[in-house]
Amino acid sequence: MSAAPVSRRARPAKAPLSRDVIIETGLRVLDQDGLAALTMRRVAQELDTGAASLYVYVANRDDLMAAMLDHVLGTIPEPSGATWRERLTALVDSSVAAMSSHEGLALVALGAIPTGDNALVLIDRMLALFAEGGVDGRTNGWAVDLLFLYITAAAAEQAAYNTKAMRAEEYMARVKQRLAELPADRYPMVVAMRENLLAGDGDERAQWALRVLIDGILATPVT
Amino acid sequence: MSAAPVSRRARPAKAPLSRDVIIETGLRVLDQDGLAALTMRRVAQELDTGAASLYVYVANRDDLMAAMLDHVLGTIPEPSGATWRERLTALVDSSVAAMSSHEGLALVALGAIPTGDNALVLIDRMLALFAEGGVDGRTNGWAVDLLFLYITAAAAEQAAYNTKAMRAEEYMARVKQRLAELPADRYPMVVAMRENLLAGDGDERAQWALRVLIDGILATPVT
Repeated sequence: MSAAPVSRRARPAKAPLSRDVIIETGLRVLDQDGLAALTMRRVAQELDTGAASLYVYVANRDDLMAAMLDHVLGTIPEPSGATWRERLTALVDSSVAAMSSHEGLALVALGAIPTGDNALVLIDRMLALFAEGGVDGRTNGWAVDLLFLYITAAAAEQAAYNTKAMRAEEYMARVKQRLAELPADRYPMVVAMRENLLAGDGDERAQWALRVLIDGILATPVT
Repeated sequence: MSAAPVSRRARPAKAPLSRDVIIETGLRVLDQDGLAALTMRRVAQELDTGAASLYVYVANRDDLMAAMLDHVLGTIPEPSGATWRERLTALVDSSVAAMSSHEGLALVALGAIPTGDNALVLIDRMLALFAEGGVDGRTNGWAVDLLFLYITAAAAEQAAYNTKAMRAEEYMARVKQRLAELPADRYPMVVAMRENLLAGDGDERAQWALRVLIDGILATPVT
């Protein structure tokens, strides 16, 4: 924040360790050097300490990743909008944006039931919004599970695109080229539907996908 | 196949290398020792050769993983069923089962547009089934994209559970315990909906989720 350089000597030799400091350092490592670089040893190095010191605050790398994810979920604002559907859409959009903002975080949520403090706040809000939309309790319990899976998958996909070495346009051009060269006898539908498969941008598709999910949930009570 | 032991000397010193042999070896490494163990070096060791020899057949680890995924997608049988909806459900079920059968494979599909030979056969079948169900071309192009994202996410989730150190019952007991201890003032909906959140088994939820997606797609034309 300050424009004046700060001498190394003027700083304390070691920042005081805490779970929060370790989490923030982990996120910084992820942003600078990606998922493969995120090790307990590396986080310890960044904090000028030994890996053993970290284990007082985090159980292991998996625990650290889960804590990093929950920290990020804590930044999601309370959604605004005139209707429950608008608020739910805003909540899903900002959840995907938050989860995809750091490489690999969304993958943590795949295959783990969300039980972090902030993940549960998110689930609580979704339950309230679906209830406002008239979704019954039984259906609601499964609806938030499905919506959370979608958020996670969309975020993982987004994060993967963000970290691709290739530019998006170049990547799409290759996909387009591949589809253009397919034999129609083996892939009749793909060849016939080529234009439809490539139509629209990621944001339009995401908004449509969310409409599909909400419409589908409203149309499909569990009992 | 033979019951008689085969002497090491009787075998050729090295199995002939091919892309298929490398893919099958990669899958074996994944099943034996998990995703972290899958390196070009390790696959080369298993084949009694050097990593450099593999690069004639596969470009790098990412290429190998993508080829392994497509190989597995090639094992998905043509679906049977009386209606397009039954056949689509069968196709999704076997796709999730195939993709989740090896740790980490589903993650390859997240964030990459499926362009492998067998992935495209799968997409072709889905397009044909949705078309049979009366879904218009524009909607169909996005529908298979969403369904593929769902398959991938469901498979990644399933694979994560399969490789969890903890038994599923023990894991669920912990989640139940966590929900039971939540403060109702901070998580009013989660606390009130506890039973609904935990109701049903994974298979019931998966079948419902797929109904939601198909119903939602039928109810939400793109144009």
